[in-house]
Amino acid sequence: MDLELLTVGTELVLGFTVDTNAAFAGQALAAAGIRVVRRATVGDEPAEVRRAVQAALERTGTVIVSGGLGPTNDDLTKAAVAEVFGKRLVRDDAILRQLEERFRSRGMPQMPAANAVQADVPEGATILPNPRGTAPGLWIEDGARLVILLPGVPKEMHGLLTEEVIPRLAARAGAAAGSVIRSRTIRTAGIGESALADRLGAYEALLGTKVTLAFLPSLDGTDLRFTVWNVPEAEADAALAKAIDGLRPRIGAAAYGEGDDQLAAVVLRRLEQEGATLAVAESCTGGLLGAKLTAVPGASRVFLGGVVAYANDVKLGFTGVSADTLARHGAVSEAVAREMAAGVARAFGAQAAMAVTGIAGPDGGTTEKPVGTVWAATLWKDQVRAFTYVFPGDREDVRMRAAQWTLDHLRCVMAGTVG
Amino acid sequence: MDLELLTVGTELVLGFTVDTNAAFAGQALAAAGIRVVRRATVGDEPAEVRRAVQAALERTGTVIVSGGLGPTNDDLTKAAVAEVFGKRLVRDDAILRQLEERFRSRGMPQMPAANAVQADVPEGATILPNPRGTAPGLWIEDGARLVILLPGVPKEMHGLLTEEVIPRLAARAGAAAGSVIRSRTIRTAGIGESALADRLGAYEALLGTKVTLAFLPSLDGTDLRFTVWNVPEAEADAALAKAIDGLRPRIGAAAYGEGDDQLAAVVLRRLEQEGATLAVAESCTGGLLGAKLTAVPGASRVFLGGVVAYANDVKLGFTGVSADTLARHGAVSEAVAREMAAGVARAFGAQAAMAVTGIAGPDGGTTEKPVGTVWAATLWKDQVRAFTYVFPGDREDVRMRAAQWTLDHLRCVMAGTVG
Repeated sequence: MDLELLTVGTELVLGFTVDTNAAFAGQALAAAGIRVVRRATVGDEPAEVRRAVQAALERTGTVIVSGGLGPTNDDLTKAAVAEVFGKRLVRDDAILRQLEERFRSRGMPQMPAANAVQADVPEGATILPNPRGTAPGLWIEDGARLVILLPGVPKEMHGLLTEEVIPRLAARAGAAAGSVIRSRTIRTAGIGESALADRLGAYEALLGTKVTLAFLPSLDGTDLRFTVWNVPEAEADAALAKAIDGLRPRIGAAAYGEGDDQLAAVVLRRLEQEGATLAVAESCTGGLLGAKLTAVPGASRVFLGGVVAYANDVKLGFTGVSADTLARHGAVSEAVAREMAAGVARAFGAQAAMAVTGIAGPDGGTTEKPVGTVWAATLWKDQVRAFTYVFPGDREDVRMRAAQWTLDHLRCVMAGTVG
Repeated sequence: MDLELLTVGTELVLGFTVDTNAAFAGQALAAAGIRVVRRATVGDEPAEVRRAVQAALERTGTVIVSGGLGPTNDDLTKAAVAEVFGKRLVRDDAILRQLEERFRSRGMPQMPAANAVQADVPEGATILPNPRGTAPGLWIEDGARLVILLPGVPKEMHGLLTEEVIPRLAARAGAAAGSVIRSRTIRTAGIGESALADRLGAYEALLGTKVTLAFLPSLDGTDLRFTVWNVPEAEADAALAKAIDGLRPRIGAAAYGEGDDQLAAVVLRRLEQEGATLAVAESCTGGLLGAKLTAVPGASRVFLGGVVAYANDVKLGFTGVSADTLARHGAVSEAVAREMAAGVARAFGAQAAMAVTGIAGPDGGTTEKPVGTVWAATLWKDQVRAFTYVFPGDREDVRMRAAQWTLDHLRCVMAGTVG
């Protein structure tokens, strides 16, 4: 089943707002085997909306329109679509009562008059209830033509799409079709993109025509997304599993999780299983490592805290780096990273520790230690191990990558895949 | 001057990639007085690209196409556009030599044969040099029809658009037209959205028809974006300045900067002017405050470091909170926040300090101290001041907002706008 997507909003065409609804809808629909063949965005102008809906109906027959509902933009989308279908707008009593109730429940006895237009619907439209906001979704069907109107507020749009629209579209397409597009993503860290590509070698060519592999590099590492295209639903999961099973021996320890897994959560879970506590000492990352760890709910069961040792005096005083080491090797060195890890573990009474020191830039680089140079160390089972890497990118890139690689180093040490 | 934007990529229609190019282009073009009236996205399918380009040319006459260049997708865009214009593809020797040079300079003496197609251009096209990548931009004009092809890689697309396309479009439109859309953004922090809206009152209605005001709330605070629409270039800056001057008395100290200003940079700059150093003590934010500060290049001139005091023992040992205070008031309390700020300043020998303690959730809330409750304190000129707030949102929201409000508190204390 094919459809088109139309997002409405002057803010969108001007680029002031990034159109995340379109990306969400594309993914959610593809996962249900519904293909978005085209998408368009127009400003809050009735004639443009009408023209775009008309064109989409002529081409594809089905269009989901997001945005341009609600009192502030005069419900221009509803009026435009009613015109395309040659239907009147009629006030729906049930919606009107719900709107009034919503305002009452928020302590406003009288609903602003402007909001009443939100209860107007094209005659014969099916109303899709929207518990997250005031404007309901609308389903307007006429022979082979189908228009679905959704509000533009992301959480309302996502809720209606998932709970109301996709099940109805799937039912309409009939169980007969049943071919789906489905994805699984393997997350990797602690390895550069080109090194990962080398390890994969010609794997992509072995996948056949129904499965594709996409490389998705980010500051958190590289995700490998496998997608099966237009296969019967019953075969999709098996095809993905087979593709991923073939991948694993090639990438080895670089894979830390799947889908939405966060590396910090993986590390904390493993430490909790070992009954260990954790402390960190950060220089160039300045708190990012702590922030990543404490973003995980329940981090307090494992993570005791840390020291942001930005100034050299702090490295001496709080993490127990010796003045001699600092003078001899410089702040960005293996020796300092090792002493920071050992020192913070001792000071906090933790069984595991991580330490990072580096040159994030834009200034501070030398020929010997260019911007991007990072030394990191981890302590686990009384043993300190260190690594160094010259990270590419700007200040933020270097810091984010350094934090993630350091987390990954501890993961690999605990898994026994680092010597 | 109006144009349409077409982005090409199956990843885009499927929603696997968010279309940030479209947002970038919309903003950059609007700032130059060029209006994007419509934008569309199609998959990597020649027939779809051809149809979309054709339709855009018929409607608007000018279309910028981004994506679908480069060897991996067989240069489908170039071929589709050549067909629309009825032109042949011819191999351009200059581009071919540049491509070969690029490969040589990366240590590959032989360019892969597949890359040669990148040197094919529709006959008569103007070549827009792309120093950031292998595929150049192309400008194809024929009477009133104009198609501009740009690669989809964001940094290449942005560079070509800014350096090559916009100046040419502006020259083509002629100085005569000269009406522009221009924006300025005032950044606020430390105030809730509805409180800010109350302060603004009916200000929006006073702006007239040529200036609009948009509220852009985020975890960093609320940005107020003023936009002038279709005014002569000579009047644009004055109209914006007038609108913003009228705003300032209403929002008072809540405005910390403009445009891309970062609150942490504002605070660090002020401390540097005062010749002061800074230390932080973080519980619920777990390092976020340090991360925000150290994201600013040159932070080391002011910021000494901090303690992430996640476990209570760390609050006692490293930030000098007394066991009695902790037992009597609990970790999330005014007294603990105050002792953390004073203690970390003393321990680090800093003249300024910030401390945050709170319940980020999802667990840990009580009736008295619900999830979102945060106590923070700042130290400046030997005086500790504290504030509390119950932040809305999930764990990440609470943490991000708490870090930002604490920074803003120190800013206001230094400015003398907090008692």
